[in-house]
Amino acid sequence: MARINDHYQKLKAGYLFPEIGRRVKQFTTEHPDASVIRLGIGDVTEPLPSSVRQAMHAAIEEMGRRETFRGYGPEQGYDFLRQAIAEHDFQARGCEVHADEIFVSDGSKCDTGNILDIFGMDNVVAVTDPVYPVYVDTNVMVGRTGPADASGQYGGLVYLPSTEDNGFTPPLPDQHVDLIYLCSPNNPTGTVMSRETLQKWVEYAKAQNAVILFDAAYEAYITDPEVPHSIYEIPGARTCAIEFRSFSKTAGFTGTRCAFTVVPKELSGMNNEGKMVPLYDLWNRRHSTKFNGVPYIIQRGAEATYSEQGRAEVRQIIAFYLENARQLREGLQQVGLTVYGGVNAPYVWLKTPAGLTSWQFFDRLLQQANVVGTPGSGFGAAGEGYFRLSAFNSRENVEEALTRIGRALA
Amino acid sequence: MARINDHYQKLKAGYLFPEIGRRVKQFTTEHPDASVIRLGIGDVTEPLPSSVRQAMHAAIEEMGRRETFRGYGPEQGYDFLRQAIAEHDFQARGCEVHADEIFVSDGSKCDTGNILDIFGMDNVVAVTDPVYPVYVDTNVMVGRTGPADASGQYGGLVYLPSTEDNGFTPPLPDQHVDLIYLCSPNNPTGTVMSRETLQKWVEYAKAQNAVILFDAAYEAYITDPEVPHSIYEIPGARTCAIEFRSFSKTAGFTGTRCAFTVVPKELSGMNNEGKMVPLYDLWNRRHSTKFNGVPYIIQRGAEATYSEQGRAEVRQIIAFYLENARQLREGLQQVGLTVYGGVNAPYVWLKTPAGLTSWQFFDRLLQQANVVGTPGSGFGAAGEGYFRLSAFNSRENVEEALTRIGRALA
Repeated sequence: MARINDHYQKLKAGYLFPEIGRRVKQFTTEHPDASVIRLGIGDVTEPLPSSVRQAMHAAIEEMGRRETFRGYGPEQGYDFLRQAIAEHDFQARGCEVHADEIFVSDGSKCDTGNILDIFGMDNVVAVTDPVYPVYVDTNVMVGRTGPADASGQYGGLVYLPSTEDNGFTPPLPDQHVDLIYLCSPNNPTGTVMSRETLQKWVEYAKAQNAVILFDAAYEAYITDPEVPHSIYEIPGARTCAIEFRSFSKTAGFTGTRCAFTVVPKELSGMNNEGKMVPLYDLWNRRHSTKFNGVPYIIQRGAEATYSEQGRAEVRQIIAFYLENARQLREGLQQVGLTVYGGVNAPYVWLKTPAGLTSWQFFDRLLQQANVVGTPGSGFGAAGEGYFRLSAFNSRENVEEALTRIGRALA
Repeated sequence: MARINDHYQKLKAGYLFPEIGRRVKQFTTEHPDASVIRLGIGDVTEPLPSSVRQAMHAAIEEMGRRETFRGYGPEQGYDFLRQAIAEHDFQARGCEVHADEIFVSDGSKCDTGNILDIFGMDNVVAVTDPVYPVYVDTNVMVGRTGPADASGQYGGLVYLPSTEDNGFTPPLPDQHVDLIYLCSPNNPTGTVMSRETLQKWVEYAKAQNAVILFDAAYEAYITDPEVPHSIYEIPGARTCAIEFRSFSKTAGFTGTRCAFTVVPKELSGMNNEGKMVPLYDLWNRRHSTKFNGVPYIIQRGAEATYSEQGRAEVRQIIAFYLENARQLREGLQQVGLTVYGGVNAPYVWLKTPAGLTSWQFFDRLLQQANVVGTPGSGFGAAGEGYFRLSAFNSRENVEEALTRIGRALA
């Protein structure tokens, strides 16, 4: 009798975004004429840059000729892309990251979930709260937690609240932990970790022999020159941190799929004999056994984002969304809401007004403004009473959404 | 102190193909002028069909316009592709498979590894021997086996020998098993399972409430009209089988990455309360939490393989490799080797001559003929004394390889 993985049954009803989709679908079915503006899921709307498209067209033609056809590529990614990443994203900022420490993948969601494969089951895992749900769900699915309590928190995980009271800078754990997820610029709060804060985390991780899983998917949105883009800007991070990056929110790759993970060669974990084993070797084994590489065509597209033209185009896309974020932030403040984020990130994080819960505010915005956002409570217990709006949309829709929200809250 | 997943340490030295790569690299370094012909790894060489390239070019242009740009797609794949697959690969052969039972992915290697996530740790797993190493390694990595013995077999796995003596038709297990990997046309032996054999397996699985993991990545190479292309051609399979398919070996997608898994809605596994839970729901949760879908551009390319032009082009590619396989098979027989496979599959499986081990024959072929193949022992203990040659190459190289092998063995 085949037995299922029972841990899946601990997962709460549904992943956040499908539940939003269900409610929106119900609303649009009942109100077929409503023009709904979606600022919920963080999905980009600007087209793929011309440099990326040109590179992909050329790659397709290479694939059409026997002499230049490419079959299986290296699972870790082609050297041309790993080199470009190492040079532009890290070495140009003074970080020591080598091309062969970069593992090209099809998404940070996949990577942050899959990375758990190389760690033992007995590690204590810490997450900030609110948090990107995938970090939590993938730990639940693999059996590293107990069941959820009434607030939705899973037994065995260490939750670090990130709230208005601590300026969205979660405290260091007051107990030992082995794995720590950090995300800066933060999804969902739109806030960033300063150099000093990151330095404290690196020192904590080194002292505890813990590993920081650093999600920098939104680093391109950092406008403040003092804020680190990579955890490897912090001395010592090479011995305690893995970093995740993505082309999704920079060059608009959410439907094109390319990302990467950095695993420094100095980083190690303990085996059952008390010996230190390089995590690099384990991740390399995992990546080459359970993954077959990103399509050659897509890797050429990603490489093009590092050309002079590509970099200019990406800067323009980021500037566009950041201007959306600024308008959202200021427009929401003008209608009397308390708003965080939206400066170094494409998300604004607002306090729900008049004691409404996150989902009550979701329903009110959907029904009275026909605007879709994301309930803060969907990101964790400490997100209750907050609400996320995404800057990924056309200028016209952002402006229209602000007008409607103002009317609905008046 | 972060702890590693100790199960990784049970893995034998290296995945088969990297070890081949290492030996070939050493040889070419020592003999820089040698023209090495690679018939080892099963990687295609024919260019991407014109229909596929056209569809991808058009998709890139769609991604370049705001009105037709696509961000996150459905993790399970776009309906246009799922419908085309259901219709052409299954319904056209009389199989009941619905579009929403198809999960589009980036590769069968990934899928056959990832599928283990949804099953409990206490299932007894059976593999044929020799076998595609990924089935075994992914079970080792997740901790479902003990350490390897001297022959390379891992404790806890049930090995079903597939040898000349049983006509490469492995026997049913003589004990209860819960999960069974079957691959037909077989990698590495190049042999196929008849309808009667598959029917026996389906009956066994139903009687044991076991689940068959059916790898049909090479089904397009079946030339015998009596041989099933899908396990769903067998009555009852919808309640006991998951099927894996890929575009890699049909339309030449090894570097382009698209595949799919079929999970019928009738299929279930038992939970810890003794209740039956649909595996469909678990896989859907896994797929949407840990995967973000195949690039839109690639899905349009895969869809094009089902157009009239695409189907003709794929047929031509398959015919080309099958003619290579025929020449390999007959050429090797002419020089006195005993050869299997190569009729309904792109692989030939030969007995090594004169008591040479698989790796001895590998080295001899590399050194004396400058031809790379794959040692049978790399696929399992029962593969010792066998050797795999792949038909994926140019006609010229296949002919040249045969000439050289004949000379080396003379």
